[in-house]
Amino acid sequence: MPQQSPLDVPEGDPFGPHNLPYGVFSTAGEERRRIGVRIGGHVLDAGAAAAALGSPYAGLLGQSSLNPLLAAGRTAWRDVRRALTAWVTDPGHRPAVEPHLLPLDEVALHLPYEVADYVDFYASEHHATNVGRIFRPDGDALTPNWKHLPIGYHGRSGTIVVSGTDVVRPCGQRKAPADPAPVFGPSVKLDIEAEVGFVVGAPSELGRPVALGEFEDHVFGLFLLNDWSARDIQAWEYVPLGPFLGKSFATSVSAWVTPLEALDAARVAPPARDFPLLPYLDDASADRPGGFDLHITVSINGTEVARPPFASMYWTAAQQLAHMTVNGASLRTGDVYGSGTVSGPETGQRGSLLELTWNGRDALELADGKRTFLEDGDTVTLTAWAPGAAGTRVGLGEVTGRIVGSR
Amino acid sequence: MPQQSPLDVPEGDPFGPHNLPYGVFSTAGEERRRIGVRIGGHVLDAGAAAAALGSPYAGLLGQSSLNPLLAAGRTAWRDVRRALTAWVTDPGHRPAVEPHLLPLDEVALHLPYEVADYVDFYASEHHATNVGRIFRPDGDALTPNWKHLPIGYHGRSGTIVVSGTDVVRPCGQRKAPADPAPVFGPSVKLDIEAEVGFVVGAPSELGRPVALGEFEDHVFGLFLLNDWSARDIQAWEYVPLGPFLGKSFATSVSAWVTPLEALDAARVAPPARDFPLLPYLDDASADRPGGFDLHITVSINGTEVARPPFASMYWTAAQQLAHMTVNGASLRTGDVYGSGTVSGPETGQRGSLLELTWNGRDALELADGKRTFLEDGDTVTLTAWAPGAAGTRVGLGEVTGRIVGSR
Repeated sequence: MPQQSPLDVPEGDPFGPHNLPYGVFSTAGEERRRIGVRIGGHVLDAGAAAAALGSPYAGLLGQSSLNPLLAAGRTAWRDVRRALTAWVTDPGHRPAVEPHLLPLDEVALHLPYEVADYVDFYASEHHATNVGRIFRPDGDALTPNWKHLPIGYHGRSGTIVVSGTDVVRPCGQRKAPADPAPVFGPSVKLDIEAEVGFVVGAPSELGRPVALGEFEDHVFGLFLLNDWSARDIQAWEYVPLGPFLGKSFATSVSAWVTPLEALDAARVAPPARDFPLLPYLDDASADRPGGFDLHITVSINGTEVARPPFASMYWTAAQQLAHMTVNGASLRTGDVYGSGTVSGPETGQRGSLLELTWNGRDALELADGKRTFLEDGDTVTLTAWAPGAAGTRVGLGEVTGRIVGSR
Repeated sequence: MPQQSPLDVPEGDPFGPHNLPYGVFSTAGEERRRIGVRIGGHVLDAGAAAAALGSPYAGLLGQSSLNPLLAAGRTAWRDVRRALTAWVTDPGHRPAVEPHLLPLDEVALHLPYEVADYVDFYASEHHATNVGRIFRPDGDALTPNWKHLPIGYHGRSGTIVVSGTDVVRPCGQRKAPADPAPVFGPSVKLDIEAEVGFVVGAPSELGRPVALGEFEDHVFGLFLLNDWSARDIQAWEYVPLGPFLGKSFATSVSAWVTPLEALDAARVAPPARDFPLLPYLDDASADRPGGFDLHITVSINGTEVARPPFASMYWTAAQQLAHMTVNGASLRTGDVYGSGTVSGPETGQRGSLLELTWNGRDALELADGKRTFLEDGDTVTLTAWAPGAAGTRVGLGEVTGRIVGSR
């Protein structure tokens, strides 16, 4: 019986040849960073395979970051993906491809792109409503602008870290309403936000808005993102100019970027809109639906605590891109934007501990005890899948991080 | 009579050898970007001069951006400045240096550093009080946190442009309180914010706060910054997550970075603090005062409209750096942060049209007519000087920009 090839991925594997997410890896034997493509439980050294096959994409794939491929634009993205699909599915390519496959557990994964700007949105109506009720109990849960524009703000791109990076508990100021003055110390309300991130490939010109229909020309792919949040720091600082130190200490992203093309079967219509939208945001007559049917799972130390449904997001990634540029702001290769916390209508669908515990009132039961907010040593993991063609599932690369104590 | 050397800068010139700001330039004949040092009305091609003199700094100065010099750290900054000072003052160096001087009006100036993250603060008590009165007339002018921490937020680093770049009037949503729904169009309240920017040279480690006393180890220099602001877009969008599209279309910075060392004589104590500060912000026993006595002038189409005094800022740049990193957020070479609008206690010292015209109520009289907010074709210019040693003045490079109509 012949030895099984790593390319013989079991049917039903969410990282089969219909997926092919991109990452950047190195090995113990070779520290040089290289572009990898995930297939089943292996990583294809894409640059080496391209060189062995004499591919015209050996240059783009033989880099230490995805940025040159991102900058190459939509036609190149499609052509490279087509070539990769042939390499991992066509038996004639196996002798050239197989030597460049490495088991996943033998590689170190790195941040796959150089981040330019980072914007975080606030696009789940259920999340925004819950947060409004918790933080502003005396006012309307949603601000008057919420259903007219996708609210967002810039975050810190320099502290975006790859999945697996430890997160140091941040120190900062906090002040409970009854305290006479703020106190300083490690955050006592360290939280997560389960989000989906998008990375821009093709840049745009300063002064020229990017229209809704240009989303796929500029955005290369998506990935899971955990927007770690210190709720006590955030609550004291965020009026009037928004979140700053409550968020800027770390944002974890998956090591794997799933190209939008792999998610064609996952496109769904967003929820019905309650107010008419201004033309630059109106996607009622869009060529294809703007939502993605991603099924996210949040686990803490192995206990599943939530299943946020991305299909329930009020604002789509295409609307967010159109809004972000409507004032003429330009896009750069490597711009990342987060969807905002994904929370569905049900209690078990909430993407933050703030919501799941109602700001600490209702503890969660984990296998290793009760939790309101995160304790040192806790590991949070997000996973997700989306429907693929013909009944398959497309897996998104996990994003995980462990809390370590303040220094 | 011998021909005068460009190095014979008239006494009293604010760009004499006591200043020596850094920039990046190119010429019509040579598009390659080069580091330049301003001396009087000339630019020294620093890399070419260093090479001609066999300087050990020819590598750092022979770059197309200041980033490698910024990353080299405080000892290198001091040594390079000492060498440059000798080159432009020691007559023995003249034959080697003079061939590398170009008249300022024969060079094109570029963004001198690659911006990593951009943070904008809100550190003038007078500005924050004025804005609070205008935007939140029914509440306290200052939020309860204002005197306990330097409020800041992240801005868009990809739209930081060099002085001289035209600014396209942004479009966006706005909604007057009486409007039933938001409308879309070019901003009708386009404004400026006269600020001072700081650029980080030496990076810091993720998870390790930068202390107040480490300011000069990390920050290379300062420059004038105009944080263009669309007040109508901002007013509608900024609750609850802060300014976004009202600011992200453009931020103009001077082409010249003044090293902190040139401003030793300009250090002044900040205003007395009204509340005790937490230890990480408490600069009462600092080795040297944290303020800078910078005298800013704001002009529109050549008419001077304000003289904001930077010495009046409540929060210092060292406090802002300590605050920005106290949660463990790391610094990267090229991080830029703005002071926030500089406004003094007097009416003529306000650094924004929002304040100068009290949100459009009181028009300014310019040589070419009345202004509340900016009109297409208007050119705004910020200049500044600071006291130098022995009665000299240190000039800051201007920052200027012209408004062009929406596309």
